[in-house]
Amino acid sequence: MTRPFNFSAGPAILPEAVLQQAAAEMLDWHCSGMSVMEMSHRGKEFVSIYEAAEADFRELLAVPANFTILFMQGGGLAENAIVPLNLSLGASADFVVTGSWSDKSQKEARKYCDVHIAASNESSHHTSLPAPAGWHLRHNTSYVHVCTNETIHGVEFQELPDLKALGSDAPLVIDFSSHVASRPVDWSRVGLAFGGAQKNLGPAGVTLVVVREDLLGHALSICPSAFDYKTVADHQSMYNTPPTYSIYIAGLTFAWLKRQTENGLSGVAAMAQRNLAKARLLYEAIDSSALYFNKVDPSCRSRMNVPFSCVTSRATKPF
Amino acid sequence: MTRPFNFSAGPAILPEAVLQQAAAEMLDWHCSGMSVMEMSHRGKEFVSIYEAAEADFRELLAVPANFTILFMQGGGLAENAIVPLNLSLGASADFVVTGSWSDKSQKEARKYCDVHIAASNESSHHTSLPAPAGWHLRHNTSYVHVCTNETIHGVEFQELPDLKALGSDAPLVIDFSSHVASRPVDWSRVGLAFGGAQKNLGPAGVTLVVVREDLLGHALSICPSAFDYKTVADHQSMYNTPPTYSIYIAGLTFAWLKRQTENGLSGVAAMAQRNLAKARLLYEAIDSSALYFNKVDPSCRSRMNVPFSCVTSRATKPF
Repeated sequence: MTRPFNFSAGPAILPEAVLQQAAAEMLDWHCSGMSVMEMSHRGKEFVSIYEAAEADFRELLAVPANFTILFMQGGGLAENAIVPLNLSLGASADFVVTGSWSDKSQKEARKYCDVHIAASNESSHHTSLPAPAGWHLRHNTSYVHVCTNETIHGVEFQELPDLKALGSDAPLVIDFSSHVASRPVDWSRVGLAFGGAQKNLGPAGVTLVVVREDLLGHALSICPSAFDYKTVADHQSMYNTPPTYSIYIAGLTFAWLKRQTENGLSGVAAMAQRNLAKARLLYEAIDSSALYFNKVDPSCRSRMNVPFSCVTSRATKPF
Repeated sequence: MTRPFNFSAGPAILPEAVLQQAAAEMLDWHCSGMSVMEMSHRGKEFVSIYEAAEADFRELLAVPANFTILFMQGGGLAENAIVPLNLSLGASADFVVTGSWSDKSQKEARKYCDVHIAASNESSHHTSLPAPAGWHLRHNTSYVHVCTNETIHGVEFQELPDLKALGSDAPLVIDFSSHVASRPVDWSRVGLAFGGAQKNLGPAGVTLVVVREDLLGHALSICPSAFDYKTVADHQSMYNTPPTYSIYIAGLTFAWLKRQTENGLSGVAAMAQRNLAKARLLYEAIDSSALYFNKVDPSCRSRMNVPFSCVTSRATKPF
């Protein structure tokens, strides 16, 4: 068997060690006689899997104790509604639009609150990022939404904006779906982070939400109970039956990530080094090529997904 | 390895043949070199898995061509909100409350519309089913909700109510989560059916929704796009990334169900025979026992889940 490289933006390739362990444990997890798929989500076996996954993710991303980690369903697109249902207070939210994902997010939020575009990179055709100093944040907005890595346009925030330094008390919401666990997160600047697992963490069908505890309990009355962060948090992500097998695979991936080392670093710091080296190599090849080019401003090029075109459209199409 | 019996109401035991195939294909599905978890949901490999699963489910349950089959996320508890968000028109819905699941459903629906309890079995402590002839259905209600098998209370509709015969034009919504694929469905009486997969069909994390096409396209403006049945249908359940691996396992289970035979019958008809025989054996043992009893009216005892108690509470507790 040859395992091909798979550059899909998600679902994407998983570590072979994770798949091998999953195959070996498929019919009998740890001498329980059960597949993880067959376990009651309230039984001691699955609860131990869940608790290990939660603890490993917390350790990997250094999530502070005042943040709750939720395992939800519906992916990033569902969170585009779930976030304003929980955080907007039905009032307002400010968006920084930097590509197709943040644009989808702001459109969906309009169903639930007054949306204001605080900044946009549309004038550069999504090839740069607007400097935070120039963002037009409203004084009393409920939250500020940023997509920290735009999959399609290939722009990535190399540093999270410091809203306090910009004079705003609003919590920062980050959609980190497409680069989660590829680099550390500065939680001191974040109120809530969400991401589908299928790009970097495991199978499609589980969504990671990391939310500062003071932001729980403010859902609109029209928020479905299964998507009310407080309800989900109060039930340790088991208000509705969680996607147990997807959580198990994500947990195996977290354990694999913890084992990774690079230049004396481990875990997410090691992954960040490795991703930086890989991205440099690829951007250098593209920039020095006579055939390919990448039009993103070097200061905000994504380490995770590198869009490129051929110099002539005649060459792009057959490619 | 001994595989224990697992009577969990969900997630529950899966056919060993399904788990064996999943283990064998984990690292390399059909010589693709990929695990199903790693495939792009838009690639030809996963699309073929999806289409086979959809076709097999349609064949198994004899779903007519004017019904759309959706693979969604969030389970039955999320559907308690998603159904009224899509079908209530913000107006009204009638509920038949027969146990804890239908009671949860009617409570959640109150967020979105005016709810009326058309009938209830509360006076019998959920041990019987109210005869449809006595239901107080409202004239212009948007839909009528019934849970056709109550997991906790063990009451099951042996026949679906015929709303037309009761003088109602409203579509019937059935929550068939806990007995889906255990018996045929009379689709001529149904507008929409929903069920989490984890009880009878596969892993937790995928929800089957079968909806008559004329009921698509009526979602409230506050319905999250990812849960708007029309949006999901228009994108063949791929508006957001679907829970690909859970759909694959459900598909393997559908194929296994199609292979089952009993008394010259096959598929769901065979399962219905088998379930009936197993349930008879168990109810006979309970009814003839001096120690155990089941208090559900024999006419509506569930074939799927059989609650029983000890005759004395002194015996129940240690059991």
